[in-house]
Amino acid sequence: MKFQEATITEIDQVMERAWKAWQQYRHTGLDQRAEFMRAIGREMEALGQDLIRKAMEETHLPETRLQNERTRTVFQLASYASACEAGHWLEARIDTAIPEKNAADLRKMQVPLGPVVVFGASNFPFAYSTAGGDTASALAAGCPVIVKAHPAHAGTSEMVAQAILKAAASCGMPDGVFAHVHGAGFETGKALVTHPRTSAVGFTGSFAGGKALFDWANQRKEPVPVFSEMGSINPVFLLPGKLKQAAKETAKTYVGSITLDTGQFCTNPGLIIGIDGPDLDIFMTELAAGIETIAPTTMLHPGIAKAYSEKRSQALKQDGVATMAVSSARVEEGQGAPTIAAATAKAFFANPVLHQEVFGPYSLVIRCADMAEMVAVARHLEGQLTTTLMATEQDIRENGALVEAAKDICGRLILNGPPTGVRVALAMQHGGPFPATTDSRYTSVGADGIRRWTRPICFQNWADSLLPEALRNGNPLHIWRMVDDQVTNAPR
Amino acid sequence: MKFQEATITEIDQVMERAWKAWQQYRHTGLDQRAEFMRAIGREMEALGQDLIRKAMEETHLPETRLQNERTRTVFQLASYASACEAGHWLEARIDTAIPEKNAADLRKMQVPLGPVVVFGASNFPFAYSTAGGDTASALAAGCPVIVKAHPAHAGTSEMVAQAILKAAASCGMPDGVFAHVHGAGFETGKALVTHPRTSAVGFTGSFAGGKALFDWANQRKEPVPVFSEMGSINPVFLLPGKLKQAAKETAKTYVGSITLDTGQFCTNPGLIIGIDGPDLDIFMTELAAGIETIAPTTMLHPGIAKAYSEKRSQALKQDGVATMAVSSARVEEGQGAPTIAAATAKAFFANPVLHQEVFGPYSLVIRCADMAEMVAVARHLEGQLTTTLMATEQDIRENGALVEAAKDICGRLILNGPPTGVRVALAMQHGGPFPATTDSRYTSVGADGIRRWTRPICFQNWADSLLPEALRNGNPLHIWRMVDDQVTNAPR
Repeated sequence: MKFQEATITEIDQVMERAWKAWQQYRHTGLDQRAEFMRAIGREMEALGQDLIRKAMEETHLPETRLQNERTRTVFQLASYASACEAGHWLEARIDTAIPEKNAADLRKMQVPLGPVVVFGASNFPFAYSTAGGDTASALAAGCPVIVKAHPAHAGTSEMVAQAILKAAASCGMPDGVFAHVHGAGFETGKALVTHPRTSAVGFTGSFAGGKALFDWANQRKEPVPVFSEMGSINPVFLLPGKLKQAAKETAKTYVGSITLDTGQFCTNPGLIIGIDGPDLDIFMTELAAGIETIAPTTMLHPGIAKAYSEKRSQALKQDGVATMAVSSARVEEGQGAPTIAAATAKAFFANPVLHQEVFGPYSLVIRCADMAEMVAVARHLEGQLTTTLMATEQDIRENGALVEAAKDICGRLILNGPPTGVRVALAMQHGGPFPATTDSRYTSVGADGIRRWTRPICFQNWADSLLPEALRNGNPLHIWRMVDDQVTNAPR
Repeated sequence: MKFQEATITEIDQVMERAWKAWQQYRHTGLDQRAEFMRAIGREMEALGQDLIRKAMEETHLPETRLQNERTRTVFQLASYASACEAGHWLEARIDTAIPEKNAADLRKMQVPLGPVVVFGASNFPFAYSTAGGDTASALAAGCPVIVKAHPAHAGTSEMVAQAILKAAASCGMPDGVFAHVHGAGFETGKALVTHPRTSAVGFTGSFAGGKALFDWANQRKEPVPVFSEMGSINPVFLLPGKLKQAAKETAKTYVGSITLDTGQFCTNPGLIIGIDGPDLDIFMTELAAGIETIAPTTMLHPGIAKAYSEKRSQALKQDGVATMAVSSARVEEGQGAPTIAAATAKAFFANPVLHQEVFGPYSLVIRCADMAEMVAVARHLEGQLTTTLMATEQDIRENGALVEAAKDICGRLILNGPPTGVRVALAMQHGGPFPATTDSRYTSVGADGIRRWTRPICFQNWADSLLPEALRNGNPLHIWRMVDDQVTNAPR
């Protein structure tokens, strides 16, 4: 099924409707927004097996994975709904007047930025797409959402969009609170990002795509924030003490992490760094043996399979790169073959091609001469979503420079576990220094993601009865606030 | 006295030293940072009258104002020191593991971004300059600071820089935690902003300057955040009920607010909007009479006086603009003459020159035909630091569209008071939509300003003893945290 690309005129209409919807939607109660988000979850579930079948057809992801991803998406919607109601994201602060110091009464809270444009990911048709984390967090903040459907799963996206519209209608949300736009070319994206009614942008995808949106947004007359999550090779450092203790078990963990869902995760471990020696040899032998046993599986769409094949071939033919293991099964058209390669740290420093993400079931092992070289690799890396240290407590205590360098390049620092698996929770940080994302200060998973779509406003000298509920003396929303520098949920 | 411009090589050395200092400084305890900031305040006070004399000579600001500004700056340093110790800015969040759901232990906190470059303001030689709010908040966050001295008060800046260095030495801070660089041309600024070790930038000044820094920072290979505060005309809406009650008193308030310190405040009310009729006439007559009695005073430096004179003349000769009142006293070289002009809303809509800031003791009164036109003026305005409503409670209740439009264009919404006067407090929002600042999501005054220099990092699956103190089970810093979605300052 082909969908009609939106014209510039249609985009203009969609954005004007979103702006009008915002005038009402931002004044809906937190409980009403929460109910709307929960209703979206119910409508997604009500689509039953039809939705799963459509997603399987478009993404080639396995049924169980898609079932689980929908469950996760419904959970995300519910957890943003709860966060919306709890109101921590409002960041209510009150400083009462001090007349003798001529100090005015100040009350500050977060307010929604305005209509938000969301570009979903190809690899998560539910959780990072139409009704995914960006949409849910923007709706929680009080922002209308305009989703640009991912062309690789436009039919799935259309079904989810209808579910959202159904939920909006049943909850009495204003017309235009959600819109769905199709478009395969970059013109649709550019028109959306540069439209004067667009207040912020969320994106999950390639560096080229995410950076283009960032640049367009900054070149506007009034720049707007862009939260692009663009990719990451998620380095894993194997520290010597840990490797001595558990080289084989560590290898087994990574055979699974590298190949899970054909390696199509933004947190897939694409780089493993160890120090040459017998323990690393044991790790690599075990890793290679494991990878050979994993059968190739079909990738999300032919474009991704082609890109994987090309980037993998390019990486493997670089000077100093040795192919360590390839799946021993036959590779069919559209599949990605699990692959492990190795290179020295010196080859890595000399060749930027080896720093690039090969999106799929591929990982490169870097052999360092010593810890100093391992630290140098960490300092050499660009920004990442995650960095993992496979390490004993003693490894951590003895290698402070590596720990600091690892921290500097990532948003999430993992000890002794694979980076795949992103828990939806307040303390999650899914984001990282550029080029992993365009803004390391925000997360796209967990309730703090709501903050992306808000800004603070301070009310000075307002009568209590005229203030928004979040800032009134009586604290009718029963939220936690900072009152005269004290944390409290009491009335003032 | 002339200061040597920093060369590119010197800037490179300064930035590398700052980066090295950061490796230590970010690990200093919150109490040590706080002590350092308080020591800066003491050293500034110890400079006594010498510092005030130098600032008077360079800025022409009156002695009392400068005394008060230093007191405010010392208070700012102390209040950021207290905020640093209280640790709310760390935003510590803990989600404990749920083994049966395979959910990892996650602990998130804010960490410093790295070396911060600060460009001070010409109009606040202390409070928004060398040891001003940007410097204090960045030091609180754990970031070394490099200040580019404002050429208009380079001598004052040099004295304050020496005070900071003295405090750093006495508190045992690492070499390079603070540096001071001179340079009048844009090359110095560009070299600082584009240096790979620069992690963030703070600026207070003109639109041209602040926007240039923003563009350079976004065009870097790794973009970095820029917090430019660039100017504002701070519209004041006179609502009909209030004007009927208190036209004369309101006018008196604004005579003072427009001309305070020769109008050289970023929150100076440059635009006053009323609805035609006898009450507005009373207001204008009183405002005009008051302005005529205010003697011209010397502006910060000849460049600012020249710019005021030119922009004022340009504004006054626009079609439809009538000069309502000018100070009746003789204007000496370098002084700014208090001036009030008036125009219709129609003239205002038609002519973008009338939307521009005239930095100095100048304000333009816009006469609207009715409330609909007043709302149209609000919607027409660009982003502002503040918007003020002079209104009765009934005015507010009856004019929701105006209130919403006023909120959308500002960071601080004031009821019945002049916008001049910026309280240093947590609930303050000193910032606003573009072009008032480059990032409406942050404040440059109050403890939330610390957040500008930080980003979150999540520790997954770390042993308690290896975690930073802020995230340990025992809560040794005694800070407020979110633990499993609950607000608490208890140990876990």
